[in-house]
Amino acid sequence: MDFIFISSIILTLTVPAHCGKVLVFPHEGSHWINMNVLIQELHSRGHQITVIRALDSWYISETSPHYVSMTVPFSLGGDDEFYRSLVSRQLQIKRQRQPAWTRFRLDMDLKDRFSEMHRKICEMVIYIIENDPALLEQIKQANFDLMLTDPANGGGVVLAHYLNLPLVFNVRWTIHGEAHFQIAPSPLSYVPFSLSQLTDNMTFLQRTYNMLFYTLRSFLYKRTVGPHYSALCSRYFGPDLDYFELFQAADIWLMRVDFVFEFPRPTMPNVVYIGGFQCKPSKELPRDLEDFVQSSGEHGVIIMSLGTLVGQLPLDIADEIAAALAQLPQKVIWRYTGERPSTVGNNTLLVNWLPQNDLLGHAKTKVFVSHGGTNGIFEAIYHGVPIVGLPLVFDQDDNISKMRHRGVAKVVDIATIDRSIFKDALQEVLNEPSYRTNMQKLSRLHRDTPLKPLDSAIFWIEFVMRHRGAAHLRTDSYKMPWYSYHSVDVVVFLVSIVSFIVFIIFKVIKCLCCRLCAKRTRAKQD
Amino acid sequence: MDFIFISSIILTLTVPAHCGKVLVFPHEGSHWINMNVLIQELHSRGHQITVIRALDSWYISETSPHYVSMTVPFSLGGDDEFYRSLVSRQLQIKRQRQPAWTRFRLDMDLKDRFSEMHRKICEMVIYIIENDPALLEQIKQANFDLMLTDPANGGGVVLAHYLNLPLVFNVRWTIHGEAHFQIAPSPLSYVPFSLSQLTDNMTFLQRTYNMLFYTLRSFLYKRTVGPHYSALCSRYFGPDLDYFELFQAADIWLMRVDFVFEFPRPTMPNVVYIGGFQCKPSKELPRDLEDFVQSSGEHGVIIMSLGTLVGQLPLDIADEIAAALAQLPQKVIWRYTGERPSTVGNNTLLVNWLPQNDLLGHAKTKVFVSHGGTNGIFEAIYHGVPIVGLPLVFDQDDNISKMRHRGVAKVVDIATIDRSIFKDALQEVLNEPSYRTNMQKLSRLHRDTPLKPLDSAIFWIEFVMRHRGAAHLRTDSYKMPWYSYHSVDVVVFLVSIVSFIVFIIFKVIKCLCCRLCAKRTRAKQD
Repeated sequence: MDFIFISSIILTLTVPAHCGKVLVFPHEGSHWINMNVLIQELHSRGHQITVIRALDSWYISETSPHYVSMTVPFSLGGDDEFYRSLVSRQLQIKRQRQPAWTRFRLDMDLKDRFSEMHRKICEMVIYIIENDPALLEQIKQANFDLMLTDPANGGGVVLAHYLNLPLVFNVRWTIHGEAHFQIAPSPLSYVPFSLSQLTDNMTFLQRTYNMLFYTLRSFLYKRTVGPHYSALCSRYFGPDLDYFELFQAADIWLMRVDFVFEFPRPTMPNVVYIGGFQCKPSKELPRDLEDFVQSSGEHGVIIMSLGTLVGQLPLDIADEIAAALAQLPQKVIWRYTGERPSTVGNNTLLVNWLPQNDLLGHAKTKVFVSHGGTNGIFEAIYHGVPIVGLPLVFDQDDNISKMRHRGVAKVVDIATIDRSIFKDALQEVLNEPSYRTNMQKLSRLHRDTPLKPLDSAIFWIEFVMRHRGAAHLRTDSYKMPWYSYHSVDVVVFLVSIVSFIVFIIFKVIKCLCCRLCAKRTRAKQD
Repeated sequence: MDFIFISSIILTLTVPAHCGKVLVFPHEGSHWINMNVLIQELHSRGHQITVIRALDSWYISETSPHYVSMTVPFSLGGDDEFYRSLVSRQLQIKRQRQPAWTRFRLDMDLKDRFSEMHRKICEMVIYIIENDPALLEQIKQANFDLMLTDPANGGGVVLAHYLNLPLVFNVRWTIHGEAHFQIAPSPLSYVPFSLSQLTDNMTFLQRTYNMLFYTLRSFLYKRTVGPHYSALCSRYFGPDLDYFELFQAADIWLMRVDFVFEFPRPTMPNVVYIGGFQCKPSKELPRDLEDFVQSSGEHGVIIMSLGTLVGQLPLDIADEIAAALAQLPQKVIWRYTGERPSTVGNNTLLVNWLPQNDLLGHAKTKVFVSHGGTNGIFEAIYHGVPIVGLPLVFDQDDNISKMRHRGVAKVVDIATIDRSIFKDALQEVLNEPSYRTNMQKLSRLHRDTPLKPLDSAIFWIEFVMRHRGAAHLRTDSYKMPWYSYHSVDVVVFLVSIVSFIVFIIFKVIKCLCCRLCAKRTRAKQD
């Protein structure tokens, strides 16, 4: 194994006195896009970043002007084809209206695969370090200030504990599910469980569904992904240390949502909301794109993109979508990498890639057709562009459902979509002013913060550097056994005492009554 | 009643376009000091402030360069002598070690008296408005942007609802108790109930005490102060509207603590922490005071002040304190308005008033002897000066206990104090470096915020002006009945279903068994 390769990187780390050294353990896949925004900003402020990546990482390149990579001699096995095929399988299940259970099982497969992958990378890093004391010494001397990780996989958490580093999360999902549910008390009566598509105002039956959904999913998440990390923790830190405990000890949770997106719910002092941290004012478009946009005249432009992973759709759906778009007076820019649908109109420009932020920020943009990934939604909110949602997989249904509830999105079901349904949805959002008005109100709320979300993220990362953690913001209550945390022991104790007292009083009264009766009987007999 | 007086004031309100009009319903007593800091800052940024006050208000003067007052023709009845006498009674109870219950009852008396007083002011304002439609019209035209109130009394809450104004709280205590307990889920297993002097790390018995203490106090608070406001709400808004519901509808809670003071605990998105918002860098001392401070040489100075209300102490205690101070090599500046104790040393300067912030910020200041009011504690934290605590009444024991837990304060019990105990406490804090080191660490954490607490407070007040509230940050879950909020109905429903199914299965099995047995018996008999 390539020990020297890693150690030579660590030795290059020298930073100015006021800056820090950050070790990053990212999550593969689209989450990397978010992490990279933070990395670039940290780098621009003089911090030195080291990113852990696999030998054949899908997204994380080995060389970058913003970080040095610590490549672990572990292969992910193939490119992200596995990931893409999973997405198509999910899409197929959805189109064919197969039972939710089938989709859920697929989701679990994905979790399982990711967990295994990240556990292996983590294991590999620790293995290499353990077998080379000189290297360990060098890492210690490199003197990292903190570990920045996305706890959608647990490798960063374990490694941070191994290296005794303060821990900062860039988080929306953890290996156990949505992040709030892992850190803050979340009453199920008004906090809809993630993916449930419920709101914070539920009927009795919805609340019942919410509770069942929560119980089932939490149980299965823990059962599916738990063992990977329990085994790892047990091997390196002994049987008494649970993964969940390490994970809860994180100093700061940079949460990739805010409350124009999320429903209001309890939170904790060490949770910092950075939803929309990747958003920025739009720049000028390239000449040809600008000309195309301007040619739309007063009708404006529709932007369509279904995210990094879904560049193409089944041809029949693509045909219907293209046909619907062709009937509109607007111009359309559609990011599409698949076979060109036969129904594409003259008004539609198919592109392999589009400058999404710059297009959403353009004054002529009227509607954003989106799959409902969080990044896209926040960009739409930032620029105040209403959404036609075509949710496909993962959390997209839930995300778009939140936007629909706020009156800024119309949802189209991929299972029933045809040209007429899709056209109607587009026309509704184009012609009903409330969609735009509501979205612009949301945009004003989202932008009206004392500190920009990205600045806030950097402030709290630097805070952890300055103070070697943020222990005063973090409760240690996770260390309590569940029955103590929920005061079950205290309640049982108090109920027992009260019962005992009532029992004694009852016995005494009974005894007195018996004696009294006996006395009277005796008196009568006398 | 002086209708014209009020209306003439309202008509004077004209503000620049980007600024707002704030109606303030403050809490009498020392809380006014906090509110006044916000008012002055708002005024300095161009906002127009109207303050509601009683005819003979103790603290809130009728004229001010920072606000116009709306004087309600209602008398508080005497000066704050009642308040002061309550303090001495509490002190007496404490010194004589009378049962906690006696002290608690006195506390309730105070609550009751305050509640009645503020209900009457509120009632009076509404009465005047109700009986003068022209005045109501004028108030509406004055177009206040929001109500800023301290919910330690409920008048502002009721009046805001009456005038249909967005509501911002400047809060630590509400009429029902500590503010967090009213808005955020607060598991009693690690959230010590206010005044309990417990920490966030409790033994089983402490947790039991915490639960009992919470149950008793919450019950009594609600019983003592509830009726005042229920009656008022019922009269003006009908029987269906509860005071608690109006109060929970507040848009922003500017909470006068932070997490170097408070233990980490759950919070809500509309809670903004402004602990220490009154703190500022120290200014130069007056010449004579500076000379006195400099004369202390390397030994430095001790600052002693027991708050706005306790200018004097029982003479025997004052004598002991003065005698202890006289034995120290430090110079002492003691705010004391009572009879001069006979034992005062040459090193001690008694003053009627002292520039506390400027003295605490002075490099020669070594220790702050404080009663443990939140304002003083935050000033000590801000300037990094360790504390000798002499808690007297209200929440002071609890506040100082929090500081002791962080290793920045030594507590002296007023019931057992003598010159030797007091001197030992002072010497311990003077000579044991950890007190100062810990306090300076706390100070660094407290000051290291992305936005100064006062700027944060103003930002969120202005946010509410800009958006006419902050509904997206506020949960509506308080509208649910308690059994729904705690999912009791859902759990009962699910348990019933499961029980029913189990019952049916059991019945079927029993029935089958019976038939099987009967068959066998018949077979045997055949």
